[in-house]
Amino acid sequence: MSLGKFIVIEGLEGAGKSTAISQVLASLEQHGIAQVTQTREPGGTPLAEKMRALVKEECEEALQDRTELLLMYAARIQLVETVIKPALNGGAWVVGDRHDLSSQAYQGGGRQIDPHVMSSLKDIALDGFKPDFTLYLDIDPQLGLERARGRGELDRIEKMDLSFFQRSREKYLELANQDDTIVVIDASQSIEAVTNDIKAAINQWLTDDVKHG
Amino acid sequence: MSLGKFIVIEGLEGAGKSTAISQVLASLEQHGIAQVTQTREPGGTPLAEKMRALVKEECEEALQDRTELLLMYAARIQLVETVIKPALNGGAWVVGDRHDLSSQAYQGGGRQIDPHVMSSLKDIALDGFKPDFTLYLDIDPQLGLERARGRGELDRIEKMDLSFFQRSREKYLELANQDDTIVVIDASQSIEAVTNDIKAAINQWLTDDVKHG
Ligand SMILES: Nc1ncnc2c1ncn2[C@@H]1O[C@H](COP(=O)(O)OP(=O)(O)O)[C@@H](O)[C@H]1O
Ligand SMILES: Nc1ncnc2c1ncn2[C@@H]1O[C@H](COP(=O)(O)OP(=O)(O)O)[C@@H](O)[C@H]1O
Ligand SMILES: [Mg+2]
Ligand SMILES: [Mg+2]
Repeated sequence: MSLGKFIVIEGLEGAGKSTAISQVLASLEQHGIAQVTQTREPGGTPLAEKMRALVKEECEEALQDRTELLLMYAARIQLVETVIKPALNGGAWVVGDRHDLSSQAYQGGGRQIDPHVMSSLKDIALDGFKPDFTLYLDIDPQLGLERARGRGELDRIEKMDLSFFQRSREKYLELANQDDTIVVIDASQSIEAVTNDIKAAINQWLTDDVKHG
Repeated sequence: MSLGKFIVIEGLEGAGKSTAISQVLASLEQHGIAQVTQTREPGGTPLAEKMRALVKEECEEALQDRTELLLMYAARIQLVETVIKPALNGGAWVVGDRHDLSSQAYQGGGRQIDPHVMSSLKDIALDGFKPDFTLYLDIDPQLGLERARGRGELDRIEKMDLSFFQRSREKYLELANQDDTIVVIDASQSIEAVTNDIKAAINQWLTDDVKHG
């Protein structure tokens, strides 16, 4: 059994995931959890970062939806097996910037890949492995993309049209509603309000579930 | 329905696949088939070649068996959808240096990946698409590897131990025996004898199956 816990931050582009991570780390530290490994997906290992580059970069050849899907899962297997599981088994906690829920939302919802294909690949890649706790930062895609644009150039996926992100958001919300380990945060609020909500959600989970569960 | 035909050359390292392809092309030309597209796997498109590099190169991080498998299929989807199917639909014939049978043999046989995983991925990636005709060049792996060594440095996969290639060969033979579109060629013979066998097999298929079938 793993000793550490795996916490994931999810949400559309510009929802505030990278911003949220510092609050999550601060909350963990306040609870005396010091040994923390950070990951991001797709990527997080030298090989997985090369796969990330393949799905992110613009190129003349049209990347097929199922090619993108398999690259995402190839990168995820590599990260889970060589970084996340070893960290958890070594007693570290892991905080992930995105994980499988992103594939469910983007490839399943956004690209509308067949649900049977989605669920077989998930089984093949993860075999039941899942985060202990997920914070889903919910945002209207238009607002999120405006924030993301403020960071600079958009990549191949960020350039998808609004309806793609609307379908992704719907899938995020649908899956969050079905899973007790996913907490929805209203990410359209000010940074201060979002930060407070994250802090409260983490604290509640740490005291209720982790310490007394 | 596709107009062209898809012919694949299969076999272990050093079996003589690259050598065989010129005979296949010569035979097609003698039958008046001039519009031919050549492919190789993994690879064959700019993106798929980058995935080939990821599975071929040595690196410090251990490439997981399932990561390798998904990369092979990601590359295959990209090649089939952007090169092979368009060529066939445009009336060209396609001659492939390896295709799905290599994954069945290497990942399924050699790496012993769960048969259910193998068959779901094949369905997800290929959805029933398969070669019209396959020449499997059968060789004892020890002899094949000696020949391959003559070409220069071995890559990450070529450096696997003999038992890996013995399992791959067994899987090749098992699958060839179950499929009428796969012809087994004894690749341990001299180049002249192998070339003659290839020529005879192609001619027979072209006259029996393609022209009168
Ligand atoms: N609640 C917020 N209100 C306004 N701007 C925000 C908020 N959260 C994040 N931002 C800003 O929006 C941009 C995208 O945030 P970021 O954390 O990088 O999002 P993500 O990692 O989810 O794409 C950054 O410039 C960030 O400072
Ligand atoms: N029948 C054969 N007998 C001896 N050597 C061969 C034969 N076929 C190929 N070779 C040589 O073996 C090496 C590997 O052949 P190649 O066609 O590159 O194999 P593959 O493409 O299957 O790895 C080459 O140097 C080639 O010239
Ligand atoms: Mg971010
Ligand atoms: Mg070759």
